[in-house]
Amino acid sequence: MSYATLEQTFYRLSQLSHAESMLGWDQRVMMPPKGNAARSRALAELGVFRTEILQDPSLAAQFEAAHSESGLTPWQTANLRQMERQWRQTLAVPKALVEALSLAGSECEHSWRQLRSDNNWKDFAPKLQPVFDLVREEAQALNAALGDELGFANDYDALIHKFDPGTRSARIDPVFAQLKAALPDLLATIVERQKHRARPNTPKAAIPIAHQDALARDLMAVLGFDFNAGRLDLTAHPFSGGVPEDSRITTRYDENNVVEGLMGVIHETGHSRYETGLPQDWLDQPVGRSMGMGVHESQSLFFEMQLGRSRPFLEAIAPRVQQHLGQDRAFNADNLHQLYTWVEPGKIRVNADEVTYPMHVILRYELERDLILGHARVADIPERWNDAMMNLLGVDTRGDYRNGPMQDIHWTAGAVGYFPSYTLGALNAAQLHQAMVKAIPDAADRVARLDLEPIFDWLSQNVWQKGSLLDYDDLMMEATGETLNPEHFLRHVRERYC
Amino acid sequence: MSYATLEQTFYRLSQLSHAESMLGWDQRVMMPPKGNAARSRALAELGVFRTEILQDPSLAAQFEAAHSESGLTPWQTANLRQMERQWRQTLAVPKALVEALSLAGSECEHSWRQLRSDNNWKDFAPKLQPVFDLVREEAQALNAALGDELGFANDYDALIHKFDPGTRSARIDPVFAQLKAALPDLLATIVERQKHRARPNTPKAAIPIAHQDALARDLMAVLGFDFNAGRLDLTAHPFSGGVPEDSRITTRYDENNVVEGLMGVIHETGHSRYETGLPQDWLDQPVGRSMGMGVHESQSLFFEMQLGRSRPFLEAIAPRVQQHLGQDRAFNADNLHQLYTWVEPGKIRVNADEVTYPMHVILRYELERDLILGHARVADIPERWNDAMMNLLGVDTRGDYRNGPMQDIHWTAGAVGYFPSYTLGALNAAQLHQAMVKAIPDAADRVARLDLEPIFDWLSQNVWQKGSLLDYDDLMMEATGETLNPEHFLRHVRERYC
Repeated sequence: MSYATLEQTFYRLSQLSHAESMLGWDQRVMMPPKGNAARSRALAELGVFRTEILQDPSLAAQFEAAHSESGLTPWQTANLRQMERQWRQTLAVPKALVEALSLAGSECEHSWRQLRSDNNWKDFAPKLQPVFDLVREEAQALNAALGDELGFANDYDALIHKFDPGTRSARIDPVFAQLKAALPDLLATIVERQKHRARPNTPKAAIPIAHQDALARDLMAVLGFDFNAGRLDLTAHPFSGGVPEDSRITTRYDENNVVEGLMGVIHETGHSRYETGLPQDWLDQPVGRSMGMGVHESQSLFFEMQLGRSRPFLEAIAPRVQQHLGQDRAFNADNLHQLYTWVEPGKIRVNADEVTYPMHVILRYELERDLILGHARVADIPERWNDAMMNLLGVDTRGDYRNGPMQDIHWTAGAVGYFPSYTLGALNAAQLHQAMVKAIPDAADRVARLDLEPIFDWLSQNVWQKGSLLDYDDLMMEATGETLNPEHFLRHVRERYC
Repeated sequence: MSYATLEQTFYRLSQLSHAESMLGWDQRVMMPPKGNAARSRALAELGVFRTEILQDPSLAAQFEAAHSESGLTPWQTANLRQMERQWRQTLAVPKALVEALSLAGSECEHSWRQLRSDNNWKDFAPKLQPVFDLVREEAQALNAALGDELGFANDYDALIHKFDPGTRSARIDPVFAQLKAALPDLLATIVERQKHRARPNTPKAAIPIAHQDALARDLMAVLGFDFNAGRLDLTAHPFSGGVPEDSRITTRYDENNVVEGLMGVIHETGHSRYETGLPQDWLDQPVGRSMGMGVHESQSLFFEMQLGRSRPFLEAIAPRVQQHLGQDRAFNADNLHQLYTWVEPGKIRVNADEVTYPMHVILRYELERDLILGHARVADIPERWNDAMMNLLGVDTRGDYRNGPMQDIHWTAGAVGYFPSYTLGALNAAQLHQAMVKAIPDAADRVARLDLEPIFDWLSQNVWQKGSLLDYDDLMMEATGETLNPEHFLRHVRERYC
C-alpha cells in the first residue's frame, strides 16, 4: 500500500511539473515582458506546493514501508528508487539556501545580460562570487546528506549528480584525460589537411525566414517529429521543452546564416524524440521520465552529429534544401558536407565543431570543480580561462571576457556541474551509433534513402523506452555491450575528419 | 491576524488561478491535439489543490475571527466578503457532484461537436438531459446553502449568482419584460425604414489575413491595448483570457468576411482593458479581480457597441481601414456605418445585431429557468425554441436544430445562468456610456479625433479601478446615479436606428 500511496503523491508532483514546464515554455516563447513578475510569482508558488509535498513528514515512513513491500515489479522498484532520490535531494538542501541561491542567481543572470555585452568582468565578478559561494554550500549539503550512500568523492560530485545521476568525477577524469591526450594531435592533423581545401561556400543571398522554416519543418517530419504532439516556435535561445505528450522545441532563424539554424533544429528534434518516446505507461512517474543530461544530450547529438552531419544524410537532404532555399551552390551535397564538418578552433563553445567542443567543456569542468573545492576563486577565472584556451586550443582570449568566461549563462544561474554532460553526451552518442550500426549493418544505406524508422526503433528500444529504469552504466552496457568508452568517439572523429 | 492569514491563503489560490488561466489559454491557442489528455490531467490536479485549500477545516474559524477584527479598511472588508463567497460556494457543492457534472459536461460537449454539424437533436437530447439533471442538483445545493443569506428567490437564482453575483431573477424579470414590450415595435420600425435603403456593400475581393491582422493591431493600439502586457492570437472561437498582467485575446480572420473579425477584436479589447485596468495592488486577492459577467460584458460592449459602431468612431477609423485593407468602396465611412448598424432578425445569436440580440437572450433565459425549476424538460426544448423564435423575431427554425437549440456551447458544458449576462452587459454599457457623455460633454468630438484617453480614464475610475470593491447595484449607482435602467439602452437604440 505504501508504494501505491507514493505513486499517488508523485503523480501529483508530475502534474505540477506539467504546469511548471508549460508555464516556463510560455515565459520564454510567448509571454510579453510585463507579464514576467506575475509569472515568476506563480512559478515560485508552484515550487512551494512541490516542496510542501516532498517535506510531508509522513513520507519517511512510507518509503520505509515501501522498501519492505514484496511483489514490486522491476519498474516499480526502479520507480521507488527514483522517487526516493528526488525526495532525499529536496530534503538535503535547506529551504533558506534554495531561496538565497535562486535570488543570487536571478540577480547575477540579470546583471550578466548587460555586463556581458559591455565586456565588463570587473562588475560581474562580485555578482558571480555569491552564486559560487551558495552553490558550494549546496554541494556540501548534498554531499553530507547523500555522499556516503551514492559514493560521491567530493562536493563537486554532488553537483554532477544533480544533472547527471550516476556520473561521478571518478568516471569523468580518465575519460577527459584520454580526450586531452588524443584530440590536440587529431586537431592539428585535421586543420593541416583543411589548409589544402578552399573554405566551403556560404549562401550568396539572404534566405527568407519563411523558406528556412518550411525546410526545418520538412526535416523535422523526416526525423519523425509528430506535429500533432508538439510545436516548433522561435526564440533567441533555442531549447527543447514541454512535456512528453506535447513536445515544444524552438529555434532561431537568421536570413544571413542558414547553416546554424538547420543543425539547431535537428539537435532539438533529437531531444524531443527522446522525450516523446518515453514509456507511455509511466509518464506520470519518475521512472518514466528521461535520464540525466548526459543521456539526453546523447540523443540530440546522435541526431545532430552522428546522423545530421553524416555524408549520406546530407546527400539525402540536399535536394530538399535546394527545393526550399533555392539553387545556391552552397546547397549541393559536397558543400553542405564541408560546411557541416569544417573544423576550426574558436572562442565560443556553442559555435564549436565536434572536434574542438570537448576542449571547451574540459576547461569549464576543471575550473568549476576547483571553484567548488576551494582550489580557485572567482577572481582567478580570467587567468585560468586564458591559460586553458591557449593550452587546449591555441586561442588567445585575453581581455575578451564577453567571448571568454562571460559567454555562458550556466554559472550565472548557479548551474554548476552541468557542462560535463555535453561532452559525455557526444561520447555516448558515438558509442550508441556504433552499436546501432552493428545491429543494422545497412544503416548508412537506409540513411541515404531517409528510411530512418529502423534507426529510431533501435534508439527507442535501447534508450527511449527505458525511461529511468536502468542506471547510466547499465543502460550503456545493455545498449552497447560496455560502459562509457571514449574510443568510440575518437574513432568517429578519425573516420569523419582524418 | 486571521484576516492576514486568509490573504495569504487566497494569494496562493491566485497563483493557482494564474497557472490554470495560462494553461487554459495554451490549450485553446497553442496546444497540439495529442497534448490534451495530459493537459486535462494537469488542470484537474490544480483544481484538486484549489479544493483542498478551500476545504481546509481551519478556514471556518479564520473567517469567524476575521469578521470580528477591527481596523479593516473598506478594501479589506470587501476582500473578506469576496473570499468568503468563494469559500462558501466551493463548500456548498459536494465534490462528487462537481466531478459528475464535469464528466457529463465533457461528454455532452464532445458529442455536441459532431451531432451539431449532423443536425442530430435526437441523439443529442439524451446527452443534454443528464447535464441539466446535475445542474439542477447543483442549483439546489447552492440555494440550500446560500439562498437565505443571499436572497435567492429560487434555485435558478443560485446559478445566475455563480456568473453574475448580485443579479437575481427579480431584477431581470421586469427588465426583460420592458425589452419584450418595447423592442418588437422598434424592430418593425427599423426594418421598415431599412427597406428603403440598399444593402451596404461588402468588399469585392478577398482581403489577405496579414492585412486584416495589421489593421486589428492598429485598432487595438488606438484602443489602448499594451502589446508589452498582452498578445493577440488566432483561434476558431475568439475569447479574452490570460491574467491582468498579461492579457491574451484571440480573434479569427476570414479572407471573405472582414466585417465580423474587426468588431470581434474591438469587443475582446474591451474585456482586456477591464482586466488590465484592475487595481494593481489587489490583483492577487479576490477583491482585485473583475466583477461578474454582466459587468465584464458591459466593458466589451461599451467598446464594441457604444464606441466601435458609433458614427464618429467609424468615420475616424475609415482611413486606417482603407490604408490596411485597400480602397474598396465597402470601406468608406458611410458604408462602414451601414455595415455595422444593419438590423436583421436571424437564427444565430452570435451574429445578431444589437437590436435583435436581446430576444435571443430572453428566449434562452426563460427556457433554461423553466428547465431548472422543473417547468420544462429537455425534450420540450425544440418546440419551445421554435415558438419563441416565431413570437420574438418572426423567424422559423423548425427542424433546423443546428441553427436552433444546438447553436450554443453553454448548456452542453453545464453553464446555465450565463446567458442573461450578455443582455445585462448591453444595458449596462448603454447606461455607462450615457453617464460618460454627461461627464465628458465633448466625448463625440474626442472620438472623432480618436482622442480616447479621457473616455478610458472615466471607465477606469468608475469601473476598472473598482475591482470587486462594490456590489453591482452600488457600482452602477456610483457610476451613473441609478441602478440598472433599461431605458438607456432603449434610448440608444432609438437614437442610433430610428
